[in-house]
Amino acid sequence: MSYIKSLLIKPGHKVRLSKIDPDFTAGFKDDQSTQDKMAKHTARLRDLQYHLYAEGKQSLLICLQGLDGAGKDGTINHVLGAMNPQGTQVHGFKVPSKEEAAHDFLWRVHKVTPGKGTVTIFNRSHYEDVLVVRVHNLVPKSVWSQRYEMINEFERTLVSSGTRILKFYLHISPEEQLKRFAERLKDPARHWKISESDYSERQLWPEYTKAYEDCLSKTSTKHAPWYAIPSNNKWFRNLAVGKIVMETMREMKMKIPAPTIDIDDIERKYAAAVRSAKKMHRELNRID
Amino acid sequence: MSYIKSLLIKPGHKVRLSKIDPDFTAGFKDDQSTQDKMAKHTARLRDLQYHLYAEGKQSLLICLQGLDGAGKDGTINHVLGAMNPQGTQVHGFKVPSKEEAAHDFLWRVHKVTPGKGTVTIFNRSHYEDVLVVRVHNLVPKSVWSQRYEMINEFERTLVSSGTRILKFYLHISPEEQLKRFAERLKDPARHWKISESDYSERQLWPEYTKAYEDCLSKTSTKHAPWYAIPSNNKWFRNLAVGKIVMETMREMKMKIPAPTIDIDDIERKYAAAVRSAKKMHRELNRID
Repeated sequence: MSYIKSLLIKPGHKVRLSKIDPDFTAGFKDDQSTQDKMAKHTARLRDLQYHLYAEGKQSLLICLQGLDGAGKDGTINHVLGAMNPQGTQVHGFKVPSKEEAAHDFLWRVHKVTPGKGTVTIFNRSHYEDVLVVRVHNLVPKSVWSQRYEMINEFERTLVSSGTRILKFYLHISPEEQLKRFAERLKDPARHWKISESDYSERQLWPEYTKAYEDCLSKTSTKHAPWYAIPSNNKWFRNLAVGKIVMETMREMKMKIPAPTIDIDDIERKYAAAVRSAKKMHRELNRID
Repeated sequence: MSYIKSLLIKPGHKVRLSKIDPDFTAGFKDDQSTQDKMAKHTARLRDLQYHLYAEGKQSLLICLQGLDGAGKDGTINHVLGAMNPQGTQVHGFKVPSKEEAAHDFLWRVHKVTPGKGTVTIFNRSHYEDVLVVRVHNLVPKSVWSQRYEMINEFERTLVSSGTRILKFYLHISPEEQLKRFAERLKDPARHWKISESDYSERQLWPEYTKAYEDCLSKTSTKHAPWYAIPSNNKWFRNLAVGKIVMETMREMKMKIPAPTIDIDDIERKYAAAVRSAKKMHRELNRID
């Protein structure tokens, strides 16, 4: 579990993204050599989510953040796609609708937080309100700078009601981003995912870096930690996120509820009734 | 594709459930011999859902109905779990909340129908309002008997806006249900799923049979067909539902959108800007 710890942003720690190597793989070599581990994570995640669902007392919220091309969609598909869609939701946050914009920035987010027994993944999240909003000066500094504490308290509120929170920042290099954009453009199944704004946003890399550094530094808390995931290698990103989610869900120690009835008791009680229902059923069919 | 057609409830046809063999497997032998087919369905479903999502013009609504133990949860997990959770939602309908009960029976359903590009699975659905509601006399016949036409028109409204609808009735025998209840009770991971009401509901098997027969007869339409899936064998149920969903999504002929930008054009336009951003990024890091 040691490499996982090294990815955690320690609460109160001042993050410098330049110190985090996006090519880091914790000594793992490649996709092939980690496939067994990945398969184990997948099976374990499926089990754990079933336990969460069955227990119905806790929930898990996973926030995914990263620049365009960092691999948010891929992470959802590969790691979290392991779970049963029943009891799992993904919410994407795009430009707010008119109704959403008419409320505070946490309003649309709060509505879709996970209910007991479920896992919710945010593909982008309330953190955009201290990232894109800050970089593009959509609100003045006096507004966005107050949001870190609001977010911390909002998340504490969720945690106090039985929600566990995990936040992943997917870290890639500018070169890797450009490579991924080019790959998407050349792939007829994925070229629709890219637009000119992806390229113009690239020019703001330094501004986004500053905004992410402040965000991670100010909002990685004990109750809702950030992990910075080196993501130039997709297989390592999937491995690391899968392992962190798995370890976290293990710590949640879900318990399958006890049975509410006794089988022998039930069989005695309903045997006669069941026989008569079957008889009625047969008679009903004979009438035809 | 012939065995699929035999499972379709033809619009206007009067259904007799006693004529449908819950053990039917269309000549397929067992789980083992159909695993290759299942794997192909799974891969194909994943692709098709990606195309639906990418296109963003159509949606798919799948309604799952069946008595307790018929396999609704299992179908979602095995067949529809093949899809990416991003763009897929599952909604379960339980006893209506106070707010839901204060509205017409389609209100809570309408709110969660799939948006363009997405697949939504209803685990139980608006059909409970002509099934459990009828069997337990929760509203008078004069009320529930009018709902079939309301449902047909509601579904036509969804279809007219680009939603494709598939409805599956999972058909099991009373003996198979009892066997599954007993299995659940004996399995510590699943005994929580069963309660005394499951056994008391069994006594109403003939009433549910009548209610399902009317429901399937009156609401299998060209625009929103019902399929009756023989479900005593879980592997056949998964195979058949998977194939029907796959064939239906193929008919939807999704198209990946054309690219909005030209790669050479973009690279020329942004090469200088990107170089300068990288330079700024390096300088920013040097300042440390």
